[in-house]
Amino acid sequence: MTDHIYKHIEITGTSPDSIEAAVGAAVARAHRSVRHMRWFEVLDTRGHIQDGRVAQWQVTIKIGFTLEE
Amino acid sequence: MTDHIYKHIEITGTSPDSIEAAVGAAVARAHRSVRHMRWFEVLDTRGHIQDGRVAQWQVTIKIGFTLEE
Amino acid sequence: MTDHIYKHIEITGTSPDSIEAAVGAAVARAHRSVRHMRWFEVLDTRGHIQDGRVAQWQVTIKIGFTLEE
Amino acid sequence: MTDHIYKHIEITGTSPDSIEAAVGAAVARAHRSVRHMRWFEVLDTRGHIQDGRVAQWQVTIKIGFTLEE
Amino acid sequence: MTDHIYKHIEITGTSPDSIEAAVGAAVARAHRSVRHMRWFEVLDTRGHIQDGRVAQWQVTIKIGFTLEE
Amino acid sequence: MTDHIYKHIEITGTSPDSIEAAVGAAVARAHRSVRHMRWFEVLDTRGHIQDGRVAQWQVTIKIGFTLEE
Amino acid sequence: MTDHIYKHIEITGTSPDSIEAAVGAAVARAHRSVRHMRWFEVLDTRGHIQDGRVAQWQVTIKIGFTLEE
Amino acid sequence: MTDHIYKHIEITGTSPDSIEAAVGAAVARAHRSVRHMRWFEVLDTRGHIQDGRVAQWQVTIKIGFTLEE
Amino acid sequence: MTDHIYKHIEITGTSPDSIEAAVGAAVARAHRSVRHMRWFEVLDTRGHIQDGRVAQWQVTIKIGFTLEE
Amino acid sequence: MTDHIYKHIEITGTSPDSIEAAVGAAVARAHRSVRHMRWFEVLDTRGHIQDGRVAQWQVTIKIGFTLEE
Amino acid sequence: MTDHIYKHIEITGTSPDSIEAAVGAAVARAHRSVRHMRWFEVLDTRGHIQDGRVAQWQVTIKIGFTLEE
Amino acid sequence: MTDHIYKHIEITGTSPDSIEAAVGAAVARAHRSVRHMRWFEVLDTRGHIQDGRVAQWQVTIKIGFTLEE
Repeated sequence: MTDHIYKHIEITGTSPDSIEAAVGAAVARAHRSVRHMRWFEVLDTRGHIQDGRVAQWQVTIKIGFTLEE
Repeated sequence: MTDHIYKHIEITGTSPDSIEAAVGAAVARAHRSVRHMRWFEVLDTRGHIQDGRVAQWQVTIKIGFTLEE
Repeated sequence: MTDHIYKHIEITGTSPDSIEAAVGAAVARAHRSVRHMRWFEVLDTRGHIQDGRVAQWQVTIKIGFTLEE
Repeated sequence: MTDHIYKHIEITGTSPDSIEAAVGAAVARAHRSVRHMRWFEVLDTRGHIQDGRVAQWQVTIKIGFTLEE
Repeated sequence: MTDHIYKHIEITGTSPDSIEAAVGAAVARAHRSVRHMRWFEVLDTRGHIQDGRVAQWQVTIKIGFTLEE
Repeated sequence: MTDHIYKHIEITGTSPDSIEAAVGAAVARAHRSVRHMRWFEVLDTRGHIQDGRVAQWQVTIKIGFTLEE
Repeated sequence: MTDHIYKHIEITGTSPDSIEAAVGAAVARAHRSVRHMRWFEVLDTRGHIQDGRVAQWQVTIKIGFTLEE
Repeated sequence: MTDHIYKHIEITGTSPDSIEAAVGAAVARAHRSVRHMRWFEVLDTRGHIQDGRVAQWQVTIKIGFTLEE
Repeated sequence: MTDHIYKHIEITGTSPDSIEAAVGAAVARAHRSVRHMRWFEVLDTRGHIQDGRVAQWQVTIKIGFTLEE
Repeated sequence: MTDHIYKHIEITGTSPDSIEAAVGAAVARAHRSVRHMRWFEVLDTRGHIQDGRVAQWQVTIKIGFTLEE
Repeated sequence: MTDHIYKHIEITGTSPDSIEAAVGAAVARAHRSVRHMRWFEVLDTRGHIQDGRVAQWQVTIKIGFTLEE
Repeated sequence: MTDHIYKHIEITGTSPDSIEAAVGAAVARAHRSVRHMRWFEVLDTRGHIQDGRVAQWQVTIKIGFTLEE
């Protein structure tokens, strides 16, 4: 088993549609500047309300990625 | 930046379909008696099981709304 | 009100599609060996990332079931 | 399974005698203005001390009740 | 020792100046509709940032008040 | 000091009468299938409300027992 | 309102009978060396099991007392 | 780096004016009987309400001090 | 509502004067290298003690800022 | 990525020597009856004291293992 | 089963070598002034860094000891 | 006392041997790109199991370092 070192970052994704889409948006945005992402953990699920319905899902995740040797 | 005061209430919505639908049901019901709702936070996600499948999603949220001046 | 005794188990379901599907997979698998399951509670929502997108949802739940008299 | 919506309130009952009596006092008082109460959860157990003995039990509970359609 | 029953509400006060002023604003606003308030507990201290400085303090408190007999 | 290994299970006992009786019911039921139980810890105290009074106490405990060599 | 200073100690009382009796034993023992005790908070409720029944309740409390001027 | 041993005590200071003054009162009072105090951590911020305003701030801190060799 | 992505960083500011000044110092320092900061949350309030008084406030905050498209 | 289902158990290992040895003892004992163990997480580190030294390390871990198809 | 009363203290031990040695240092120091120590629980594991390596382990434990009759 | 500003990062080190070695690996790797590291705190201790023994320790730490003026 290779002894990697992992770093974590915390990021909030948003979506008008679903929790899964908000997480996906966070991961996709992080992918533009972070390499070797491996896993995430949901820390917090929130949202905005407008006119008696959920207008936006806001999901905060912690992402772990491998640091290169 | 206007210095509003916010009050919070805690409510559980239910749905046979999804977490998002259970949250939506809670927000829609609160909308009938609470004005100026701004945001929510998911506190707890539970459900009932029947015949080896999820029969009902039960999601507890905290809702924040602006108190009128 | 009948005074049942409940036991709890902790299980992680996985799915490439959604949080709801991961919970459903955990409940369906437990159903093969546990009888009288009543409720669940989501403890943890995690996942694997591949190529900048969520490849797998991993949701840990606690399941409560009635112990037979 | 009917898809009810539940609201929660937080209340502290007190009693010179026991934890159970303090919870009972909170539930009885809430019953005067809240209908359709279903369950409670103990959040906090405290008390006052006088002359080297417990003079009052103070138990904070969260009560859940069904919102009418 | 009188055996009162207490109810709790959760409220967020805001201020451009300090944590104490945000708590004071929350208490003053609640005072307009709630009687017999006794104590508070700070649950959360947040704020808004503008132009590299704190533009608004947002402090969430739980307030306990005596229910009348 | 003997170096035992302990396993933990989580179980909910119920009683119409008291917290102590609900814990006792959980321990007595577990005793029918688990040997060498040593200790418990209360994790959660809940209950059902009917007609403005506590109809059932529901106490969840973690039980530790020695695994045989 | 007098501006007292309070110190806290943490202590575990035990009893074969009930949670209330275990708390009472802790308070009575502390009373032999600590003056001006005002309040307590239950931190932890545990116990020993013997022969399939609860043999001892062990309740850990935090006690607050006024420091003399 | 010297290998000191530290002990911790928990204390609540009060002030009519501010959180900082309540912490300062707790530290000043502890200074009368504890030597070599090094740091503190705020555990809890509460207060009393009178006539719709904060009458007293009550801040609980943990203080660490070096034990003498 | 625009679907922004937010990143979070954790930073500790210090001040000899107050909690507010320590938070302000952290925000001002972060402003030199981070753009589009929106909000903060206080995670931890600590300090150093010298000669029986608070010599330094140390406040750890989480800062959220918008990631540019 | 294969969509496995995982079950978790909680177990306490003990050792007179070290935290690592206590975890190793728990894993080795579980290995006698549980197959396909994948990972563990340390939940709690405790111990017994005798004659002013640590006589036994007691480490509670959660173990995750794959359920067979 | 004898109904003892236990008191708890919180103490931080340090060591350049290991977590176990830091706990041992805390227990050994407490042994000089506290009798009848029974158990400990690790609350926090921290340390100092110098020149890119761990220069000191700092482990905070809670110690429980029997109060004499 | 100099009023520094500190930033925190979260990193997971791994080792086949011990918790201390896993922390040391995380600190050593961070040392290659972060200057002025001062302290760490252990957040999480996990590991992989293979063939009934611990194959890898995975320890997540938060590292604090001074930001340069």
